[in-house]
Amino acid sequence: MKKVRKAERIAAIVNILTENPNQVFTLTYFCQMFNCVKSTISDDIDGVKEVFKSYELGTIETISGAAGGVYYNPLMSRDQMLEFTGQLSEQLSDPSRIIPGGYLYTNDLLYCPKTCSKIGNALASLFKDVDIDYVITVETKGIPIAMMTARVLNKPMVVVRNKSKLTDGTVIYMNYMSSSGHMIKTMCLSTKAVKKGSKVLFIDDFMKAGGTAKGIIELMQEFECEVVGVGVLMATKQPIQKLYHSHKSLLLLSEIDEKNKNVYIKTAL
Amino acid sequence: MKKVRKAERIAAIVNILTENPNQVFTLTYFCQMFNCVKSTISDDIDGVKEVFKSYELGTIETISGAAGGVYYNPLMSRDQMLEFTGQLSEQLSDPSRIIPGGYLYTNDLLYCPKTCSKIGNALASLFKDVDIDYVITVETKGIPIAMMTARVLNKPMVVVRNKSKLTDGTVIYMNYMSSSGHMIKTMCLSTKAVKKGSKVLFIDDFMKAGGTAKGIIELMQEFECEVVGVGVLMATKQPIQKLYHSHKSLLLLSEIDEKNKNVYIKTAL
Repeated sequence: MKKVRKAERIAAIVNILTENPNQVFTLTYFCQMFNCVKSTISDDIDGVKEVFKSYELGTIETISGAAGGVYYNPLMSRDQMLEFTGQLSEQLSDPSRIIPGGYLYTNDLLYCPKTCSKIGNALASLFKDVDIDYVITVETKGIPIAMMTARVLNKPMVVVRNKSKLTDGTVIYMNYMSSSGHMIKTMCLSTKAVKKGSKVLFIDDFMKAGGTAKGIIELMQEFECEVVGVGVLMATKQPIQKLYHSHKSLLLLSEIDEKNKNVYIKTAL
Repeated sequence: MKKVRKAERIAAIVNILTENPNQVFTLTYFCQMFNCVKSTISDDIDGVKEVFKSYELGTIETISGAAGGVYYNPLMSRDQMLEFTGQLSEQLSDPSRIIPGGYLYTNDLLYCPKTCSKIGNALASLFKDVDIDYVITVETKGIPIAMMTARVLNKPMVVVRNKSKLTDGTVIYMNYMSSSGHMIKTMCLSTKAVKKGSKVLFIDDFMKAGGTAKGIIELMQEFECEVVGVGVLMATKQPIQKLYHSHKSLLLLSEIDEKNKNVYIKTAL
């Protein structure tokens, strides 16, 4: 077999690790790929580690021992997160986003793969130390950012629906009260969706009083699962007392002033 | 400034290109990053090109000229697509997936970021030569694979809803007939969602008779946009005559035999 040069090995290793965030690859995997010894791959990875660190490209982590290996974690630094949430705040503060009724149009950003990937990176970075089995969300607008968060964390996503479809099979249906307390809403989830005893991270695009988060926590209790984190793209300043207290948010929305066409959003970090 | 070695440059370049599929980076961008001349970066990229080719890691494309640059296209080869759709067929043929009513439970695969990313790569590979402005889908189950397809193609995604929400602002509502012809369904989309004169690629998880695809084509006409491609994860063998003829599918579902617990799925490539 042809001998593969260092730069070539590194190109392939970095592509494979980057395409598969938080997935552990054994050194043997790469040894077989390049027909070389472990110490060679080990050296290559040490070099990559350094570069990623100096250019803030996320981190390359190694696990030693028999079950060891290497993986890529596209973590954002605090400065990178501040810069990104600053840009997002600016984009979202554009008065042309104000919708009749005093809402904010955000679909273009939530559905833009590039923005959405970065939101996923940022949300995953907020929960990097939390051990989870699933990322959970509620249809519809939160799905892309939940998917991108799940992609970074390398965990399956679960989507709770407002109404079940035939393809969900048997579902658990739950009624819950909207935050305003004026409306009964429903959420449902297939009984096949999560394993008993799992830890879940709830991700959504928006939180006002936290009624949905509270609903998800109660629904997860029915599945004997625990919500160990709640992360949202944007939370409103009011009410300060949310139904779920310890959420983490990337952005803080203070006010949408429909009359004077002003939107007040800033980073929540 | 410290001189950066070839292997280090390549590690950073490959990470940045891989994280941003189909996004063009100028050579100047990397020259400034590493404080080096264009010919150095050019050499680096030629090396990376070769490695990606020999290990089938997608392609690195260069555009020459003033507006030139380099980008990564995570295209799958035909063999890779056959292998992947073969694995998927096997997973989906598991009789425990049969749901009362003769449906197939697919949520776990559609919501698994790893599987979903590969489906996105495969669908994007099917339409690599089609010029599009948006990837469009209908809520809910198709969203993750549409998002991953849009990510690979580096185009915004658009989500058509069955019922509008306040945050959609002004919407265009359309009634359409289900494929069976027995049910009137509705779909709606914010007037802000797509620009007039755009070309869109419709992506969905499942197609039976093609009623939804037909609905999307009609809805897009209302927005003065054109559907230039329809791609689905799985299409049924029957009816052979779909309402939309020239769709492309990764998988072909022949039969779900609920009585004998058999599922017949194979690659559609």
